[in-house]
Amino acid sequence: RRSHMAVSYTDPQVSMDLLRAVLQPSFNDDIMAVFKKYQKFFDKAAENVKENVGDDIQTDQLIREACRNTLEHAKQLFPEGEAKRAGSDIAIKRARAADEDCI
Amino acid sequence: RRSHMAVSYTDPQVSMDLLRAVLQPSFNDDIMAVFKKYQKFFDKAAENVKENVGDDIQTDQLIREACRNTLEHAKQLFPEGEAKRAGSDIAIKRARAADEDCI
Repeated sequence: RRSHMAVSYTDPQVSMDLLRAVLQPSFNDDIMAVFKKYQKFFDKAAENVKENVGDDIQTDQLIREACRNTLEHAKQLFPEGEAKRAGSDIAIKRARAADEDCI
Repeated sequence: RRSHMAVSYTDPQVSMDLLRAVLQPSFNDDIMAVFKKYQKFFDKAAENVKENVGDDIQTDQLIREACRNTLEHAKQLFPEGEAKRAGSDIAIKRARAADEDCI
């Protein structure tokens, strides 16, 4: 009678999301490292906006919103509902190609 | 009469999103490099699912969905609607701290 076994380990989405949850903290560290590369651009842009629009602009909120939007658009690297493929490797290559158009 | 000037450069969200769009391709490359680190785990998990559940499982779709979910959860690094802060640097530090709980 192990109650934690109630989780359905045969649900594909659940299984994958368990792994996703385990990897998330490490992934988040990597993502933050990536954003640090771009932070000076976001900082500068937000400062410009503040200068042009007014002091009631909350630059940190603008920057966080831009970061969330960047993550949202990055999902296009992993498009939904493609036809059946032989393997994930092809999906990754396709995503890389799609990346070129992604603006 | 330059029609492209019709875009409102004074809208803070628009200004920030123009920058976001410029940075997106480079950011996407960095994101793909990060995902490559984790790809073997996702591949293995999807193969296990296929083995346990059946051959009609499309592993590449499972993997892409997991990747999109990872990006979605990474948005918690940049939370919405916080109180006014002195600067973006604090936001980044807060996001790092939040990261620890993020599962």
